[in-house]
Amino acid sequence: MRLHRSALAALTFWTCASVAEPLPQDWVDQARAIGYEAANSNIAYSVVESLTTEVGPRLAGTEAEARARDWAVSELTKLGFDSVTVEPFEVPLWERHIERGRIVAPGEQPLVLVGLGGSASTGDAGVKGAILRVESPEALQALADGSAKGKIVFVDQVMARTQDGAGYSAAVRKRRETGEQAYRLGAVGALIRSVGTSGHRFAHTGQMKRAGTSDLPVVPTAAVSGADADQLGRLLDRHDSVEVELVLTSEYLPAAQSGNVVAEIKGRTRPDEVVIIGAHLDSWDLGTGALDDGAGVGVVVAAAKALMDAMPEGPDRTLRVVLFGAEEVGLVGAKAYAQKHQADLDNIVLAFESDFGAGDIWRLDHGVADDALPLIKSMTAMLSPWGVIPGKPGATGGPDISVLAQAGVPVITPLQNGWDYFDYHHTPDDTLDKLERHSLDQNVGVYAAILSVALREGVYFK
Amino acid sequence: MRLHRSALAALTFWTCASVAEPLPQDWVDQARAIGYEAANSNIAYSVVESLTTEVGPRLAGTEAEARARDWAVSELTKLGFDSVTVEPFEVPLWERHIERGRIVAPGEQPLVLVGLGGSASTGDAGVKGAILRVESPEALQALADGSAKGKIVFVDQVMARTQDGAGYSAAVRKRRETGEQAYRLGAVGALIRSVGTSGHRFAHTGQMKRAGTSDLPVVPTAAVSGADADQLGRLLDRHDSVEVELVLTSEYLPAAQSGNVVAEIKGRTRPDEVVIIGAHLDSWDLGTGALDDGAGVGVVVAAAKALMDAMPEGPDRTLRVVLFGAEEVGLVGAKAYAQKHQADLDNIVLAFESDFGAGDIWRLDHGVADDALPLIKSMTAMLSPWGVIPGKPGATGGPDISVLAQAGVPVITPLQNGWDYFDYHHTPDDTLDKLERHSLDQNVGVYAAILSVALREGVYFK
Repeated sequence: MRLHRSALAALTFWTCASVAEPLPQDWVDQARAIGYEAANSNIAYSVVESLTTEVGPRLAGTEAEARARDWAVSELTKLGFDSVTVEPFEVPLWERHIERGRIVAPGEQPLVLVGLGGSASTGDAGVKGAILRVESPEALQALADGSAKGKIVFVDQVMARTQDGAGYSAAVRKRRETGEQAYRLGAVGALIRSVGTSGHRFAHTGQMKRAGTSDLPVVPTAAVSGADADQLGRLLDRHDSVEVELVLTSEYLPAAQSGNVVAEIKGRTRPDEVVIIGAHLDSWDLGTGALDDGAGVGVVVAAAKALMDAMPEGPDRTLRVVLFGAEEVGLVGAKAYAQKHQADLDNIVLAFESDFGAGDIWRLDHGVADDALPLIKSMTAMLSPWGVIPGKPGATGGPDISVLAQAGVPVITPLQNGWDYFDYHHTPDDTLDKLERHSLDQNVGVYAAILSVALREGVYFK
Repeated sequence: MRLHRSALAALTFWTCASVAEPLPQDWVDQARAIGYEAANSNIAYSVVESLTTEVGPRLAGTEAEARARDWAVSELTKLGFDSVTVEPFEVPLWERHIERGRIVAPGEQPLVLVGLGGSASTGDAGVKGAILRVESPEALQALADGSAKGKIVFVDQVMARTQDGAGYSAAVRKRRETGEQAYRLGAVGALIRSVGTSGHRFAHTGQMKRAGTSDLPVVPTAAVSGADADQLGRLLDRHDSVEVELVLTSEYLPAAQSGNVVAEIKGRTRPDEVVIIGAHLDSWDLGTGALDDGAGVGVVVAAAKALMDAMPEGPDRTLRVVLFGAEEVGLVGAKAYAQKHQADLDNIVLAFESDFGAGDIWRLDHGVADDALPLIKSMTAMLSPWGVIPGKPGATGGPDISVLAQAGVPVITPLQNGWDYFDYHHTPDDTLDKLERHSLDQNVGVYAAILSVALREGVYFK
C-alpha cells in the first residue's frame, strides 16, 4: 500500500478498517451505473461469437492462433482502444494426428478417447496391452518400478463437481503425472478417466506435463470419456483380463510462434499506473473455445469498452487488456508477459482475469495487502446487486494472472459459478451454444463496476 | 375377430362397446399385480447392462452382431425360455473407415460429422467444394439437375423435439434423400444437419437409403452435429463462400450374416396362438445401443420373464420374444421373419415392440380390428396406474413389427415419452448411463400387464 492511507484519510471514514462501506457513495453509485450499462451492451456475446465463428479452435503455436491474434488486433482497434500491440514469443507445439482406441479382448469395442497434450506417440502400429487399473495418482505412485511391464495403466479417479472448481486441481494431478508414472512402471501406454464432469460421451484433453517441469519421459497417454471409463470398469469387474489397443500419433515442434495481444486505454492523470484485465486467446484444438476462454475474452473486452464509453475523457489510470497466448500449454504467454514487463510490474495497481467459463460471478476472492482488505470489503458490498458475496484471501487471480501474483502484483478473483464448466472443458462440446448470455452480461457488469473503482487514482491494493 | 364375441358374450358385459371396463375385475387385478411385480424385478436393467457391456456396439452383419446373438441365446436360455433359436438371414454390410471433415475457407476449422449408412466413399483423397445450403429436402428437390456442380450440398433443416416422435419421420426424409438428390444436382458431396435433437456436439448417423428402394446413385454424405450446422450457418451469413473438405471412406459387402433370435414360452392350452413381443438386437456402430435398442431388449425379456414367474404352469397361449437382427439398416430382420413365417402369420394374436428408448409409456396406440376397440379401451383403463392414457388408431406397432402389421397382424404401440430420445439416437452418446431405471421398470410393468391379458385364450384383437 502506498497512497491509499493518506488519500482516503482525507475522506475521513477510511481509518476504521471494519467499516463496511468506506467507498464514497457517489463512487458506488457511479460504479453500479457503469456496471448496469455495461451488462446491457451485448458486446461480450458478439465478441465470443465472432472469435469462435471466424477463427474456431486456436491451439497455441498454430496458424489458427495467429489468425486469432489478427482477429484480436482488428476487433480491438475497431472498438477504439488507444493502442493495440502484439508481443510475440515462442512456444513448443504438440499436435495430435491419429487417435484411436479400442478394447480388443474380451470382445472388440471402440473407445472414445483423446490424447493428452505432450503425449508420446505410439507410431502408426499402436500399442496393445492388458489394462492395469488403479484408483488414484497416489495408488499409481505407490507401485514399484517396472511393475506394469507391457501393460496399459488406467487411472480411474472421478473428478468432483463443485461450484468453485475445487475438484479440478485435485484431478489435474492425474492428468499431469500418469504418463511419466506409467513410464516408470514399464507400461506401454496409459489411460485416465477424463479430467471433467461431462455426463455425455466426450473425452477431455489437457496438458499432461509442462516442458521443463519433469525429466521423466512419458508413455503415450490418452483420456477416455466417463462412459468409457465406466465401461472399462464394468468389463474389469466381469473378466480377468481386458486388453486395449491404442493408436496415438502426434508431432512435436520445440518452437512455434505465439504472442500476447495487449490493448490499452491510456490513463489521463496517472498513465503509469496500470490496471490489468486478462483472458487467453488460445484454446484447445477440439472445441471452438467458447467457454475456455472465448467468454473471458468477451467479458474483459466488453468491460473495457464500457469504461471507454462511460469515461470519454479517459480513466485516471491506464486500463490494459491482455489477451494471453499459449495459456493451455503451460501459461507460456503469461510467463513471457511477466518477463518482458519485469521492470514495470510494480506499476500494476491490480490485475484480474476471466478464465472459468461464463457462469455468474458469486464471490470476490482476493490476494491483496492486509491494509487493502477494507477496500475489498467495500467493493464486495458495492457488487451486492449482482449477488456477489465476500470471498477468501489467497486468490491468485486466475491461471495467467497467477504469474503476476507470484511476482507480487495485487490480484482479485471474481469467482464464477463453475458447476457445469468442466462438463465442456477441453472437449469438442465447448461451443458457442453453451454460453448463457445473461450470465455473460452479469460478468461484464461486475468487471466494469470493479474497474470504475480500481482505475481511480488514490485507490491502492498493496 | 374370431372367438372373442362368443367368449366374452358369456361374460355378459362385453356386448356394449362403450363400456369402459369390459375386462373382468379379477383379470385386471391380476394383470396389475403381475405388472407391479415385474416392475420391481430389475431384470431389464441387468439385461441392458450385460448386452451393452459384454457386446457393445453391434452393427448388423458384423462379428459384433454375431456375438450379440450368442449373448442372447445364452441369456435367454439361462432365464428358462422353453426354446431359443436363431433364424439366420443375409444382410448387406456397409462399414465406415476414415471419416473426417473440415472447413477449409475462409479459415480452417474441423467439423464433427459422421457418415450416413450407405454413403458412397470419397476415397482417401476426399472431396472439396463450396457449400450450397438449402433449408429443406423440398428445397433440394426443387433445384434443377446439375445445378450444384462441384459443390457440397448442405441441407440445414432442424428437427422438431416432440414427445411422440412426430419430428423424426419428417427429418428422416432429409437423411434418406439428400445423397441421391445431391447426385442429381452434380454435387461432389453432401452434408445434412443431423437427424436428432442433441444439444451436445454429436453427429447422428442412420441409414441414408435402403438397398432396392432407389435406382439413383448417391454422393458421399455425412451428418454434422447441430453445433457444426450452426457454425456453417454463421459462416455462410458472414462470407460469400464457405469451402469444405470431406474424407469419407467406407466399404460395402453385399451379403453378410445376420439373424433373428426367437425365444418362446409355450402356451399350455392354445400353443398355436402366439403373442409376439419384439425388440432389435443390432445397433449402430457408434454408441453401445443402450437406448436403441438395448432398452427394448431389456423390457421385452424382463416382461416375458415376469410372465414365466407369474404363471409357472405356462400361459394359455405361446409367448414369443423376437430379438430382430439388422433393424437399423432397413428392417431386414423383420422382413426375413415375415417371409419365413408367412404361413403362420394368421396365428399371431397380437404383436408389439419396444424400440423408442427407455422413456415412460404414456399412451396406448393401436392397430386392431374395430371390434377390438372396447378391449383396447379396457386395457388402457387397466394401465392407468402407470399413467397410460387412451391412444390413437393406425399404430404400426414399431419399426420391425410394422412389417407384420402390413401383413394384417393386430398390433399395439405402447408409446413411450421420446422427448429426449433423439438427443442420443444413433450417436456415440447412446450408452448405459442414459437409462432411467424407474422408466425402464415402468415399461416392464406395462408390458407384463398387457401380456397377462393378451395371453389368455378367448381374447382377440381382430
